Amino acid sequence: MHLVIVGGSDAGISAALRAWELDPAAEVTVVVADAYPNYSICGIPYYISGEVTHSTHLAHRTRADLEATGMRLLLNTRATAIDVSGHRIALRGSDGQSSWLDYDALVVGTGATPVRPPIHGLTGPDALGPEDGVHLLHSMGDTFALTATLERLTTGHDPAQGPLRALIIGAGYVGLEMAEGLTARGILVTQVEALPEVLPTVDAELGALVHAELEHHGVTVHTSTTVTAVHRGAAPFDSRPGQLRVTGVDAQDRDLAWDADLVLAVVGVRPDTALLAEAGARTGPRDAVVVDETMATGLPDVWAAGDCVVTHHRQLGVTYLPLGTTAHKQGRVAGANAIGQDARFAGSLGTQVLKVFDLVAARTGLRDHEAIAAGRIPATIQAAPDDHKAYYPGAHPITIRVTGDTATGRLLGAQLVGRRGSEIAKRVDTYATALFHGMSVEELSDLDLSYTPPLGTPWDAVQMVAQAWSRQHRAGRRALPV
Amino acid sequence: MHLVIVGGSDAGISAALRAWELDPAAEVTVVVADAYPNYSICGIPYYISGEVTHSTHLAHRTRADLEATGMRLLLNTRATAIDVSGHRIALRGSDGQSSWLDYDALVVGTGATPVRPPIHGLTGPDALGPEDGVHLLHSMGDTFALTATLERLTTGHDPAQGPLRALIIGAGYVGLEMAEGLTARGILVTQVEALPEVLPTVDAELGALVHAELEHHGVTVHTSTTVTAVHRGAAPFDSRPGQLRVTGVDAQDRDLAWDADLVLAVVGVRPDTALLAEAGARTGPRDAVVVDETMATGLPDVWAAGDCVVTHHRQLGVTYLPLGTTAHKQGRVAGANAIGQDARFAGSLGTQVLKVFDLVAARTGLRDHEAIAAGRIPATIQAAPDDHKAYYPGAHPITIRVTGDTATGRLLGAQLVGRRGSEIAKRVDTYATALFHGMSVEELSDLDLSYTPPLGTPWDAVQMVAQAWSRQHRAGRRALPV
Repeated sequence: MHLVIVGGSDAGISAALRAWELDPAAEVTVVVADAYPNYSICGIPYYISGEVTHSTHLAHRTRADLEATGMRLLLNTRATAIDVSGHRIALRGSDGQSSWLDYDALVVGTGATPVRPPIHGLTGPDALGPEDGVHLLHSMGDTFALTATLERLTTGHDPAQGPLRALIIGAGYVGLEMAEGLTARGILVTQVEALPEVLPTVDAELGALVHAELEHHGVTVHTSTTVTAVHRGAAPFDSRPGQLRVTGVDAQDRDLAWDADLVLAVVGVRPDTALLAEAGARTGPRDAVVVDETMATGLPDVWAAGDCVVTHHRQLGVTYLPLGTTAHKQGRVAGANAIGQDARFAGSLGTQVLKVFDLVAARTGLRDHEAIAAGRIPATIQAAPDDHKAYYPGAHPITIRVTGDTATGRLLGAQLVGRRGSEIAKRVDTYATALFHGMSVEELSDLDLSYTPPLGTPWDAVQMVAQAWSRQHRAGRRALPV
Repeated sequence: MHLVIVGGSDAGISAALRAWELDPAAEVTVVVADAYPNYSICGIPYYISGEVTHSTHLAHRTRADLEATGMRLLLNTRATAIDVSGHRIALRGSDGQSSWLDYDALVVGTGATPVRPPIHGLTGPDALGPEDGVHLLHSMGDTFALTATLERLTTGHDPAQGPLRALIIGAGYVGLEMAEGLTARGILVTQVEALPEVLPTVDAELGALVHAELEHHGVTVHTSTTVTAVHRGAAPFDSRPGQLRVTGVDAQDRDLAWDADLVLAVVGVRPDTALLAEAGARTGPRDAVVVDETMATGLPDVWAAGDCVVTHHRQLGVTYLPLGTTAHKQGRVAGANAIGQDARFAGSLGTQVLKVFDLVAARTGLRDHEAIAAGRIPATIQAAPDDHKAYYPGAHPITIRVTGDTATGRLLGAQLVGRRGSEIAKRVDTYATALFHGMSVEELSDLDLSYTPPLGTPWDAVQMVAQAWSRQHRAGRRALPV
């Protein structure tokens, strides 16, 4: 039994480890396009900020750890084709040589690639790139290109000219983490977001809190603003070498322009599906590869997992919502099934959390517009209970939005923003676990949650907002369909 | 409709507020034995430590807040008897005058009283008391007596004689919080616990971590040691006025003796049931008043809630496990039912959390011996995953013990100890929510929990220990009875 896995990131390595865990005798080969198996993509902003002091620390496990399980790692090797009927894949090594590798079972975890926004200067044959100080950010290769630019800029920089300036296109998770990371390096950051508020994965009322936190830490934020072009710097407005000129337009159609030493475009990812699609796999939402809950692709003996496949969502059905946690879970399922077990991915709730400076923002489940699109009749309430008893020093409010179904009383989702230290990340987990079980908003008050004055309240903050929702929308548990 | 509530602490006020919330027109009278309605008993240690700067801050709500709902508060008034057939209770006011108060529905939340341990010097007609520096601690009255003693000791204290010394009998929740609180006041604390380890509500492996934390902060800890007597200080060994001499015996039957300026006995509580028992209510475990899940006592139109009644436990059935969170929930149910609704207490899981200096300890559900007593075949595993990715600064291990049923694979309980800041309090809530739904240990890996490198790991710590349990005890979800 030879299990071949394409992809050395979360999904691929999870599949490999799960197969080994269930059958230590299974022969496992992992094909890794670069030299960085099992690196934590989510940790890249903290390496760039300097908080992670060496890139190798980003590895969840070292190469030696991985190989100690008996798995074979083919690094710097690309899988270029799947011969489905022949049960083999074509490989191209770093030396350019091609070869075939036979498999009994194949798991594909090729992940996603960063979207290059359709902005003048970022696309086409003359597109600016790392050597100009213009970067995308997704892989370790992208990371090293960016750190090389930072090194070059810092070395050649005369502090008398003021701080270095970065412009970040996009204010989603990576964009916000990078705003913090570059600020931590002493770089003046301008952040440009096309949508009306930063962190568009939460409601604008909460995004506004993150917006304020960015500005509090010196980041200049432009929302409802589109970047139209990035040019190499021209002499008239600045003589600093290697500088970039960025232009944009705001919601009032006013032209804007910024000088920057560095431009970082982080506007999302798209699934990397070429390998599977060319082998005949079907694609679905956002052109991700369609898999069922066993992570089977429909191609015989080929499973797939991670950012390259669709996401089974417990509330939305089949969608595309790439997250590291989901990739781990999907990979674990694919690895089990590839060696003959019967595992199923239980489904995502889109649970996410982000730290931006001293603030933490989290969400799980659906927001109003998503719930409406899914055929629900949602209502959302916002309240800001304290993270612990106000009489004990250091209490801070947590702004919480709870979304429930007014027809059934069922909990649909929750969003939280509060200070770091207010246990936001694990409070969203209580909502996520409640959502997993389809609880009503009213039933949240039945949960026996922990309390001590320095760390909570007798009804935890998550329950207090649920109770406020219930007061407004009296669709109690008894209205729940069984 | 006149709802009378006896007791102004968690259960009583929760009942009053819930009745008001559901029927703002209900006439509600709350009979409060002292002058401190809705005070947070759990906050007392932080008032004594000085972190809560005024006793009135301990009130969850002010008297004005409460009265704004329309409820009438009879302060400094004791309920001395219930005339069940007459639907009235006998009251005695602070002036000694007796009177009757009619009710349509009665909710009793008389709470608990602190246990006075059977130690020479603490019991009998010559028992030492607050004027000698010997204290129990449960009510605001106890609190003011203790702060008066501390004031007196501090005022009369010559620093040249070294710090003041306190001896705490008991190392449960209150004992440990008071060890921290008195240490914060510069008092040298000796803590004596009869059982083999401190914090006996968690396994000794975790209690040992709390033990080390106490010693790290200068507390002298004696476990497996029984206090045998407390005497007024005698001249031969010390001339400091008002001093106490405490004797004890350790596990090896060795005699021990300590000098102390203050002795605090905090060895638990017993339900205060006189009012209900004399009216004919039945008592059960630990002599607490028996109620059903609607909080009905069996006496017509009389409900009861809080520390005076038995606890319906989701795993153990009827037991006695007094907690503030439970009192709030029971009171809310009693208040609803007293005005004619149909509410049920969903049951406790014994979820608890404690902060001791920089450590946090939490538990939910059952430990091995409790599970065995409940007819299960448990197994417990211990592991110490990091609270967040180790590459991000400030990661700390969380020591977690997960208990599962080897016959069914079902989660039975979890215990956690880690640093403050490691989101222990809300991580135990994930286990508590999983337990509420009867999840298997294996199924914990299906939960979509949040992750960002500064605050977690792709499989959260709570899942990593569950996976370790599953690896050892392969009773997966498919073995679960439906």
